[in-house]
Amino acid sequence: MGILLTVAYDGTDYCGWQIQKNGLAVQEVLERAAAAVFAPGFTLLGASRTDAGVHALGQRAHMTGASTTIPLDKLPFVLNNALPADVRVVEAISVSDDFHPIADAVSKIYTYSIYNSRFRNPLLRRHAAFVPLPLDVDLMAQAATHFIGQHDFAAFCASGSTVKSTVRRLFDVKVDRAVCSGLGQTIEITLRGDGFLYNMVRIIAGTLVDVGCSKLHPDDIPRIIASCDRTRAGKTMPPEGLTLVEIFYEQV
Amino acid sequence: MGILLTVAYDGTDYCGWQIQKNGLAVQEVLERAAAAVFAPGFTLLGASRTDAGVHALGQRAHMTGASTTIPLDKLPFVLNNALPADVRVVEAISVSDDFHPIADAVSKIYTYSIYNSRFRNPLLRRHAAFVPLPLDVDLMAQAATHFIGQHDFAAFCASGSTVKSTVRRLFDVKVDRAVCSGLGQTIEITLRGDGFLYNMVRIIAGTLVDVGCSKLHPDDIPRIIASCDRTRAGKTMPPEGLTLVEIFYEQV
Repeated sequence: MGILLTVAYDGTDYCGWQIQKNGLAVQEVLERAAAAVFAPGFTLLGASRTDAGVHALGQRAHMTGASTTIPLDKLPFVLNNALPADVRVVEAISVSDDFHPIADAVSKIYTYSIYNSRFRNPLLRRHAAFVPLPLDVDLMAQAATHFIGQHDFAAFCASGSTVKSTVRRLFDVKVDRAVCSGLGQTIEITLRGDGFLYNMVRIIAGTLVDVGCSKLHPDDIPRIIASCDRTRAGKTMPPEGLTLVEIFYEQV
Repeated sequence: MGILLTVAYDGTDYCGWQIQKNGLAVQEVLERAAAAVFAPGFTLLGASRTDAGVHALGQRAHMTGASTTIPLDKLPFVLNNALPADVRVVEAISVSDDFHPIADAVSKIYTYSIYNSRFRNPLLRRHAAFVPLPLDVDLMAQAATHFIGQHDFAAFCASGSTVKSTVRRLFDVKVDRAVCSGLGQTIEITLRGDGFLYNMVRIIAGTLVDVGCSKLHPDDIPRIIASCDRTRAGKTMPPEGLTLVEIFYEQV
């Protein structure tokens, strides 16, 4: 039996999920907290390698070889006691022996948040990208629909990626205004797909921003996808706007 | 001619708006930035004394005795260059000589944000109060309507306040769910009134939380208001949930 943790974090002060030489990784602080609860010998595998500065509300981490007498519903409280305030375990459930957090993921939801105004919003500086050029949300929403379906997303994949196939399926891509009166209004790009290439969401967001400021037309999107040419798509948007919202599994 | 600045800030790392001995005040960093732009001799008066840890999207600061050749529409850019990332000037307009930022304020909007879930949300830890007990938003919204109108809000004023009258008028009090998919869902209490007593919004929020978890009934509110007894109202909620959203003037 393994344990599947759902993990939320503010990625601002981390070098990403994955342990690296330069900087503190989220996985590292989670492993340290787990070491205070579990006997040595456990392993912890994340479902998604979020980049430096990227946030999560629903990252998943799979623990195997973990043995503890703490009931699963109490485990988040115990782990959170040993975690810094910017990382929280929000759920712990048991999964079968053959569960794999990456291979078994059926779909994921990412949201890219943009603060679109003349001046930066200090309350959103860590959690939304700042775009001062006025964006047309309707045009962006129109363009977003062209991403839905199964496509070769090679044009939306950062160079240096070593994946075998750049074909992915997006089930839904939406662009909406989100209003939190205490934080300010954002433009949210929300994508649900069966998998995402390296920097794919941030490049799609950059391309939708180009549409929003009329550098591109919504009907340009199918041609950009078909080109499989990274230079035709928009720029990679900064990490602070990106949140891994949820990961879905069949058996969970 | 004076200049009216609209100022947004993340109050997390400040001892409040007002300059104090213990800690850095927002007014202080704004005055320092202004000193880089204006000749000595200007004065700067804030419209609202927000407390330590309280945020603002629409604080106002009135400058008099300020002389500069920088056009007003460029002034925010110049001041922002000299400000830390958690304080932004988002507007600068001219006002007449007899303008007063406190006396002339017709109404203000405050929002109190609550993250209501079993576990804390790291993305909202600085900008929403955490309440783990499940809250009934409909009951809270019902209770909120009882605050609308002109009342003696003595029961909702922190002790130690030296105001002459505790009578204030609330034009609107609403309780809503606000959904930002990249940040998480909050409960927002939004109040518009002609003035607010010391800690009034945070005590009203605490009282509405008591209603939301059934410690109080919505119909208890009129009796609590009528009592003018601080001990009958709910507790003062923490500062991180509070944002000064907007201040309205007749002539601006």
